[in-house]
Amino acid sequence: MKQHMDADIFVPLLRASLSQWKQQGKRGVWIKLPIQLVNLVYPVVQEGFRYHHAESDYLMLVRWLPNTADTLPVNATHRVGIGAFVVNDNREVLVVQEKGGAFKGTGLWKLPIGVVNEGEDICKAAVREVKEETGIDAEFVEILAFRQSHQSFFSKSDLFFVCLLRPISFAIQKQESEVAAAQWMPIKDYVDQPYNQEHQLFKYVAEICRTKLERDYVGFSAMPMVTASGKKVYLYFNGSDFSKL
Amino acid sequence: MKQHMDADIFVPLLRASLSQWKQQGKRGVWIKLPIQLVNLVYPVVQEGFRYHHAESDYLMLVRWLPNTADTLPVNATHRVGIGAFVVNDNREVLVVQEKGGAFKGTGLWKLPIGVVNEGEDICKAAVREVKEETGIDAEFVEILAFRQSHQSFFSKSDLFFVCLLRPISFAIQKQESEVAAAQWMPIKDYVDQPYNQEHQLFKYVAEICRTKLERDYVGFSAMPMVTASGKKVYLYFNGSDFSKL
Repeated sequence: MKQHMDADIFVPLLRASLSQWKQQGKRGVWIKLPIQLVNLVYPVVQEGFRYHHAESDYLMLVRWLPNTADTLPVNATHRVGIGAFVVNDNREVLVVQEKGGAFKGTGLWKLPIGVVNEGEDICKAAVREVKEETGIDAEFVEILAFRQSHQSFFSKSDLFFVCLLRPISFAIQKQESEVAAAQWMPIKDYVDQPYNQEHQLFKYVAEICRTKLERDYVGFSAMPMVTASGKKVYLYFNGSDFSKL
Repeated sequence: MKQHMDADIFVPLLRASLSQWKQQGKRGVWIKLPIQLVNLVYPVVQEGFRYHHAESDYLMLVRWLPNTADTLPVNATHRVGIGAFVVNDNREVLVVQEKGGAFKGTGLWKLPIGVVNEGEDICKAAVREVKEETGIDAEFVEILAFRQSHQSFFSKSDLFFVCLLRPISFAIQKQESEVAAAQWMPIKDYVDQPYNQEHQLFKYVAEICRTKLERDYVGFSAMPMVTASGKKVYLYFNGSDFSKL
């Protein structure tokens, strides 16, 4: 639906269609209303539809026709974020202090972090965030760890992937809007920061990063693949163990 | 907002509040409208709000007040699913044939799969799905691999985690509604199915599962943690390499 339509024209059409769809044995009926057609939201709900999901510019409504349990797919449940562990050959890690956020003014040096955009690959989001925040070009190497948490944003959950990256450039040019400071910091100084030592999750992530530099710690590398339907996807797995074959 | 309110009462109140909030330097204004208050969706959009997200029973609207770029958090972008690789001591894997879905009638024996519920831990979702589909009790061991794909559901992306589980019970009692058949199948027969050999992604996942049984393949184990704010989370990482310390 794209063109403006008055409710008193739309509702009789919808009722006729619903009646026909029921006879045809249809089950789920979806109506996508662009925000310009917000005048139809009220009448559509009056016709027995409920909300399914919304984005900035549209609202998706749905109605299940049969008298059986609704098998409609669930809405998206997770946001996905990345933290980038970028280390140079001097065992220095790329760290930032943010202008805003929970750690503003605390002096804590953090890994660059960011949110994975809709439709973006995790491995590419890590490269993009590092470039945006610090000006450093880097290559994705592997995922070292990830954390799942709940109730992070309204009722939604959050998956956060710690990614190892190899820098290709070294001169820092920090983003003015979000980053207060950025530097290359010896890995020991990064890990030993009091906050990282005192908080279990931060301590584990920092120690996993240190372990990666000091010993054989293998994360999940990313392999691009094409599915049977022609979709490009990434499979993440322990490529080191797998390739020993 | 919970009680019914007519638009001609609500709109003047909203306008007065917006004016006050602008003077106070407020930036983002959120209005959560339960579906019972659907009559207010149209007037709220007329006041300059856009949709942010929706669930079955409410619509969240938002308006950014300053003349600066909107820094509002993005909506959830991913659905999360699991596939469960459950292997007994005879090197037999628990497989199912589904009554519906893309592989209905193809004869393909698949790992039990399912969607992670809102607020559910990945490691617990795998255990629940195995129990629901096959009646088998099992313990989560580790994540062997995961796949990210896009445009899986409207514009949303999908993360699918392949989990290794250790069975605790062995007598199959299949779910009648979704599962056509379930059995313990020799790992070789599972991997060698033509579909699994002919499709790159399925082949990799099957070979990773076989590798896990035959050699040292280490995935990510799950460690429960408590964050600084008291939230219970799971960190997934290569616990085997990490604990060698």
